[in-house]
Amino acid sequence: KEMLGFPGTASGILTGGASEANLIGLLVARNSVANTDVGNYGMGHAEGRLTLYGSTESHSSLIKAADILGLGKEAFRKVPVNKNFQIDLGALRAAIVRDREQGHVPFCIVGNAGTVNTGAIDPLDELAELARAEKLWFHIDGAFGALAALLPEYENKIRGLSKADSLAFDFHKWLYVPYEAACVLVRDAEKHHHALAVSADYLNPQARGMAAGPEPLSNYGIQLSRGFKALKVWLSLKEHGIDKYRRLIRQNIHQARYLGSLVEASQKLELLAPVSLNIVCYRYNPGGFDEDALNRLNQTLLAELQERGIAAPSYTVINGRFAIRVANTNHRSRREDFHRLVQASLAIGEAILCARPPEAVV
Amino acid sequence: KEMLGFPGTASGILTGGASEANLIGLLVARNSVANTDVGNYGMGHAEGRLTLYGSTESHSSLIKAADILGLGKEAFRKVPVNKNFQIDLGALRAAIVRDREQGHVPFCIVGNAGTVNTGAIDPLDELAELARAEKLWFHIDGAFGALAALLPEYENKIRGLSKADSLAFDFHKWLYVPYEAACVLVRDAEKHHHALAVSADYLNPQARGMAAGPEPLSNYGIQLSRGFKALKVWLSLKEHGIDKYRRLIRQNIHQARYLGSLVEASQKLELLAPVSLNIVCYRYNPGGFDEDALNRLNQTLLAELQERGIAAPSYTVINGRFAIRVANTNHRSRREDFHRLVQASLAIGEAILCARPPEAVV
Repeated sequence: KEMLGFPGTASGILTGGASEANLIGLLVARNSVANTDVGNYGMGHAEGRLTLYGSTESHSSLIKAADILGLGKEAFRKVPVNKNFQIDLGALRAAIVRDREQGHVPFCIVGNAGTVNTGAIDPLDELAELARAEKLWFHIDGAFGALAALLPEYENKIRGLSKADSLAFDFHKWLYVPYEAACVLVRDAEKHHHALAVSADYLNPQARGMAAGPEPLSNYGIQLSRGFKALKVWLSLKEHGIDKYRRLIRQNIHQARYLGSLVEASQKLELLAPVSLNIVCYRYNPGGFDEDALNRLNQTLLAELQERGIAAPSYTVINGRFAIRVANTNHRSRREDFHRLVQASLAIGEAILCARPPEAVV
Repeated sequence: KEMLGFPGTASGILTGGASEANLIGLLVARNSVANTDVGNYGMGHAEGRLTLYGSTESHSSLIKAADILGLGKEAFRKVPVNKNFQIDLGALRAAIVRDREQGHVPFCIVGNAGTVNTGAIDPLDELAELARAEKLWFHIDGAFGALAALLPEYENKIRGLSKADSLAFDFHKWLYVPYEAACVLVRDAEKHHHALAVSADYLNPQARGMAAGPEPLSNYGIQLSRGFKALKVWLSLKEHGIDKYRRLIRQNIHQARYLGSLVEASQKLELLAPVSLNIVCYRYNPGGFDEDALNRLNQTLLAELQERGIAAPSYTVINGRFAIRVANTNHRSRREDFHRLVQASLAIGEAILCARPPEAVV
């Protein structure tokens, strides 16, 4: 998909999800940038500790990838964020300097295009520039957010996307494709190939017959035998066209903003993070309760919303506050759904406080 | 699936394929056996080089896993095989001793239950014993072969299977389930969990609602969101029952032996490896040609078989000899198919040598 601003010469592979796509991106980064042949000789052979950088809001799959790849979870330096939950560039620069002074080997910066908690978009342009200046790999986790790049109005915010060395994103989120379908793009196909290709007598291509033809996909991913994921992605794109996706993604974002405005308009609901994409984090806060009580209250409120079949938001914790988290990637969502969610949140919140059975209220 | 002799307390997870299952098995091995906390501090923190052992016939995904995990491909010690393509136990013991002397840290033995090239089954019992004596992790790659354990007549050969610390196998091979469905079992669920569990505010379980209930599968694998692979596996097992699988697997093995006997009975065909499971490797060898010419001849022969729609064998190289490789995991295979394959191989072979258009012959 060079609709995300990657050159035609870039390589890519469909994966089971963004966790695997992130893993492959970081693997290519590690094997490409390391000061030694870690692919053959292992991480123990590298001089100095390879470190990588992302914000505290980075997805857990990236930290897990650091473990899997033998970098160690601690090698993922969690850089603080600003009030918009974007990575703090000053802190990032300082962390790189500090690591270099201590003899470590910074090798990769991870940018977020839509963080899991709040949908925040890191300053991708600046990160791309910093990565280039410091000779680091620039990987972007754009699990769902990368697809906002389809919208002209997001072009500025997300421009740095096309400057990444590798980019992971899902089709099974904001392209409404069924599980499992994600993708990793790598700008330098040669590095991608070098990090993942294997040769084996039972795999090497033949001049003729069934094993002739293009290079096997397994040379760009972890899987060997694999399902035909591309079919559903390609058919969806062909059938609906990019314009329809553009419209639906925009609709999801506008709906999220609408929900945000409803929350802000309410005296008893509190927005816990700015709405920058399609994620809204809020809580019921009628005043007069400490944080612990609010957390318990909102956990109960969320359970009631889910158990009674009203709505199925997820949850997270924002600055220690339990948040009801609405991640709107449903093309069937309608404005009235969000209106109803707000009404139900208020009514259930009140019912819990009054210890009335919530059935009596909504 | 504790039908493979694993205790009920073992953990397991379905994966997209055996490559991923092997990767997870070796990851748990690495993080469990390493002399330091490599999960948090990385491979660079380990004292000495972590090494693992498998035969030269081990699948490429295991060597690729060694790269991914930061062990390095070279850390996978390829131990020679005997004439039946089973690992040479003496050479294995010597390799472990040699590595220890050089300050390396052996941590894992990989056994094959059905090698990719010839279907050879390593002496699993002895490997299990050796691993226990040397305090190494014992992983088995049983991509398809593990399921031979369902047959009482294979109990002796494959008994060591149930002594493995981890076991990878596919449902999409010898359980006739569509792609993608594989599995890794880990005897010690706690170690499995420890190597792969992450905590994140948006993932941690809740007391009530949709996030209550059993622990998320992501704590045992690489994926987070995932398709419902278990459905097709469970429904297939329920619908057909273990007995039917037993019958079909046995049928596939008997058919492979039948093909082997046809090859041996022919003057111009040559069996390149013993038939130990369901894989038959043979070539056309009418005599009087050197190895190079035979390799070219059989490559052409295979291409003709495939391109003319007669049969779709794969290929490999056995001791430098290009082999036509029949891996029989099709429940629809019939004896006459193999008879036809032999006839066609002979006829096409002859046609190539006589430079007659092969259409005229078969």
